[in-house]
Amino acid sequence: MKLLDGKLVADQIKTEIAAEVKLQFLDRDIEPPHIAAVLVGEDPASMTYVAAKEKGCHEVGFVSSVYRYPANISQAKLLEVIDFLNADSEIDGFIVQLPLPAHIEEHVIIERIDPLKDIDGFHPVNIGKMVLNLPCFLPATPFGIITLLERYNIETAGKNVVVLGRSHIVGTPVSLMLSRKSNPGNATVTLCHSLSKDIALTASRADILIVALGKQGFVTADMVKQDAVVIDVGVHRVPSTETKSGFRLKGDVDFEKVSRKCSYITPVPGGVGPMTIVSLLRNTLKAAKRKLI
Amino acid sequence: MKLLDGKLVADQIKTEIAAEVKLQFLDRDIEPPHIAAVLVGEDPASMTYVAAKEKGCHEVGFVSSVYRYPANISQAKLLEVIDFLNADSEIDGFIVQLPLPAHIEEHVIIERIDPLKDIDGFHPVNIGKMVLNLPCFLPATPFGIITLLERYNIETAGKNVVVLGRSHIVGTPVSLMLSRKSNPGNATVTLCHSLSKDIALTASRADILIVALGKQGFVTADMVKQDAVVIDVGVHRVPSTETKSGFRLKGDVDFEKVSRKCSYITPVPGGVGPMTIVSLLRNTLKAAKRKLI
Repeated sequence: MKLLDGKLVADQIKTEIAAEVKLQFLDRDIEPPHIAAVLVGEDPASMTYVAAKEKGCHEVGFVSSVYRYPANISQAKLLEVIDFLNADSEIDGFIVQLPLPAHIEEHVIIERIDPLKDIDGFHPVNIGKMVLNLPCFLPATPFGIITLLERYNIETAGKNVVVLGRSHIVGTPVSLMLSRKSNPGNATVTLCHSLSKDIALTASRADILIVALGKQGFVTADMVKQDAVVIDVGVHRVPSTETKSGFRLKGDVDFEKVSRKCSYITPVPGGVGPMTIVSLLRNTLKAAKRKLI
Repeated sequence: MKLLDGKLVADQIKTEIAAEVKLQFLDRDIEPPHIAAVLVGEDPASMTYVAAKEKGCHEVGFVSSVYRYPANISQAKLLEVIDFLNADSEIDGFIVQLPLPAHIEEHVIIERIDPLKDIDGFHPVNIGKMVLNLPCFLPATPFGIITLLERYNIETAGKNVVVLGRSHIVGTPVSLMLSRKSNPGNATVTLCHSLSKDIALTASRADILIVALGKQGFVTADMVKQDAVVIDVGVHRVPSTETKSGFRLKGDVDFEKVSRKCSYITPVPGGVGPMTIVSLLRNTLKAAKRKLI
């Protein structure tokens, strides 16, 4: 078994991005890429993610801004924020951190984002272009997953891929990306979800198993084919007496047992997580390159 | 075995549409729905399809226009046509018949169509909204397929659906529609294509098998599970001494042998074909309802 070391690959890509920022922006007296995040309320997971994103930005030489609003901000006011960020030529791309409070319709907010600044790749036009295999911003987590497969030279063409979980931000887009006529891609993809029957049987047929169900330890060794590649997107805090913080992070996969059976596996933490952040940075760099033309 | 009689269901839906046209448009002195088709060149299949669409329009009381251009029309000129149709308030929706000649970039033309008039559902923003399960125009053939399943009360939730063929107009969108959290939907969908291995084995696990490969007679009885539901999207002209025209239409499925094994099957012709046309009419009606508000 080999680890798919997302931290290592993400660090390599960050070095590549930092070199591009120096060469294409700073050395030519062009403002470096500038990313903004809109954070509504104080959801702890959202705050953690935005902080990680800011850290990543600083490491590669991007400028990063965070726009913070209370959880009771009105939808109309939030739409004004979007309009402001769309129009601000200093900001190359931005994200609206999800989830939003229940009184705000997420799709209305996301559809208001200028698709050319939609570095999360959540706008319908970017999703549609992804389906059509046209240039677009790919959503960060699936983009990170396919990059990880690519950097480890894991063949996807003709392979049976099983994706567990059909969320709009991970399961559905990664299933689309891997079934497209592209590389990585060209896989035979089965998308499973909470209403699927015989998930264990379906999963056990996968050459590449991608798990994004949000259920800690759901995938056990009997659900994994010998020598399969396993990608674990889950992140769960579980109590632990072995760490200072009193908890440790675990995924959707029973790592200890599954790792003995598969050829490659992502650890949690240090697998998909760092690849997500670095994929957002890649999208930001791409957005910022518009000012080089 | 029961036939999934697309002709019969399409006729029922046409009666429903005609009643709506009378009640909501004609009886209120509002112009009936008006659909336009842009036809470039003289591809026989395209001309047949556009003629069938016109016939359907007349049956339900729509106004139908066809804009014909020679195969050597420039991309710039075709974009002007799109702009004209987008702006023309008399036209509720329009299609650009594909394929276009090789010197024209299809995606540039399609992205120029106003998404609110994109009754083919091919614009990236409509595809993205389909993925996100938001209101949109669904592409006609997949929309026809799910309608057929719906009208025959064929349960899709939790079923294993295998789709053969990943085209942008049939295979990929129908796989998305059936895996979404919706009804019909909630199926476990596997999308196969030319690079898939063991297609026969995968197909034989399907409760519902949707075949859109464009290979005449590809699906044989050994590839179909006992009592499966089989949807055949293929249409091929094969020479025949039994018909006046000298040919007959066949599908991607070996109907004679497969029909003995499955619970439901679409005939060719008279299965998916009529459902495609009527789905385009439904989209047009929906587009035209904007003027009722």
